[in-house]
Amino acid sequence: MKKKPLILVTNDDGITAPGIRKLIEVMNEIGEVVVVAPDSPQSAMGHAITINSTLHCTEMTITDGPQKEYSCSGTPADCVKLAVNEILDRKPDLCVSGINHGSNSSINVIYSGTMSAAVEAGIEGIQAIGFSLLDYRWNADFDAIRNYVKKITLGALKNKIPPHVVLNVNFPHLKEEDIKGIKICRQAKAYWMEEFDKRTNPMGLDYYWLTGKFVNKDKGEDTDEWALSNGYISVVPVEFDLTAHHAIQNLNTWDFEK
Amino acid sequence: MKKKPLILVTNDDGITAPGIRKLIEVMNEIGEVVVVAPDSPQSAMGHAITINSTLHCTEMTITDGPQKEYSCSGTPADCVKLAVNEILDRKPDLCVSGINHGSNSSINVIYSGTMSAAVEAGIEGIQAIGFSLLDYRWNADFDAIRNYVKKITLGALKNKIPPHVVLNVNFPHLKEEDIKGIKICRQAKAYWMEEFDKRTNPMGLDYYWLTGKFVNKDKGEDTDEWALSNGYISVVPVEFDLTAHHAIQNLNTWDFEK
Repeated sequence: MKKKPLILVTNDDGITAPGIRKLIEVMNEIGEVVVVAPDSPQSAMGHAITINSTLHCTEMTITDGPQKEYSCSGTPADCVKLAVNEILDRKPDLCVSGINHGSNSSINVIYSGTMSAAVEAGIEGIQAIGFSLLDYRWNADFDAIRNYVKKITLGALKNKIPPHVVLNVNFPHLKEEDIKGIKICRQAKAYWMEEFDKRTNPMGLDYYWLTGKFVNKDKGEDTDEWALSNGYISVVPVEFDLTAHHAIQNLNTWDFEK
Repeated sequence: MKKKPLILVTNDDGITAPGIRKLIEVMNEIGEVVVVAPDSPQSAMGHAITINSTLHCTEMTITDGPQKEYSCSGTPADCVKLAVNEILDRKPDLCVSGINHGSNSSINVIYSGTMSAAVEAGIEGIQAIGFSLLDYRWNADFDAIRNYVKKITLGALKNKIPPHVVLNVNFPHLKEEDIKGIKICRQAKAYWMEEFDKRTNPMGLDYYWLTGKFVNKDKGEDTDEWALSNGYISVVPVEFDLTAHHAIQNLNTWDFEK
């Protein structure tokens, strides 16, 4: 019998979130599961890491099952670093992050703690997938997408994700039977239009809440936004070589010296 | 007389850091300067933003000069969002971030607060440059690079940074006369090999400090690491479309459905 793949599970909503509990349940059907996830929500943490304070990590059982679980005081990227260097006795075959409560499509990938964990794993040479459901609620229906999560994970293990690439998978907020299928996409060129809610505190000082509106002017039918709003699951290959290779030629024509 | 460019200055080491003070001094020679920077160090924050707590922003004078300055409780990305949406009365012509105390070359761009501010500006359609000096000390000699900072900034304003691209500029830790010039580079494929320093606290519980060793096996002479270790200033065009476009074809051959 072939050895079961070792799967590292993490997220950014915290180790008790229903999204990660569902992901653990699905991964237990596929491999040997070790969970190393933040002890508290870490949304919008981007690719933050903890260098100026200490990290704590405690083995615990959140739900019964064959998985081993560790709750960690750090960010999602910290969790992956700790797992790989201190907790696991061998390199995992796969790292899955999520299932995020809410979208990580388009430009959201930049701010996403869920995806930062997947990217960190990718940097360490581990195949990785971030999963997100377009439903921000704590009690979102993750059962509707469990079969697809399993299919995509098995597909990745079988086909192998290309080197230096991780997958950003987003699910539309639909019933299973209404999901039309999986589309490989590019990240839509969209952005957040901020609207700061300015208030005055009881001492008379101003403060702000960051709010905003998502603006997508990218009409392409090959984008994750198009796929999601047309009933498909979007799969975007994400890279962490941020070099804009196409711009190098232009910059080489600049004359800095005069 | 042509109107002076409006320049937004920020960083991740905090508004009082010598690196940003030098950057403000240089920018005052080029344009109208508004500083919106974190009130405390935000290193390794990645592209974090503050969505679950409030932001404060206070106008203050740190050093005399024509610039306007605002100290902000958030992350570097928050500072840019606040500046553009609440503080500035028009879109800035340029955003500069830094000068960082320490390197943001190669994979460090992913973890960098300095670069997250530049990327945030880029997302908002503003030309942006992140500057970093390979000297972590608080009293690093920023005078040695002030002429180059000015040259590169003027070069960017004159030539225009290509759309959807920001510049990641790193300076070697050398005297001005020993710097060989400017090289346009790609991000070296390097990574951090973590070494967690595991300790036991007075209560008998384990905790960790994240430490590590930077490993660069990328031998290319077109990388930022090569440039910096050979006495050049590295300029890497950075993009925030993270799509691994080259991988889409491969992923489209996957059969998810079996």
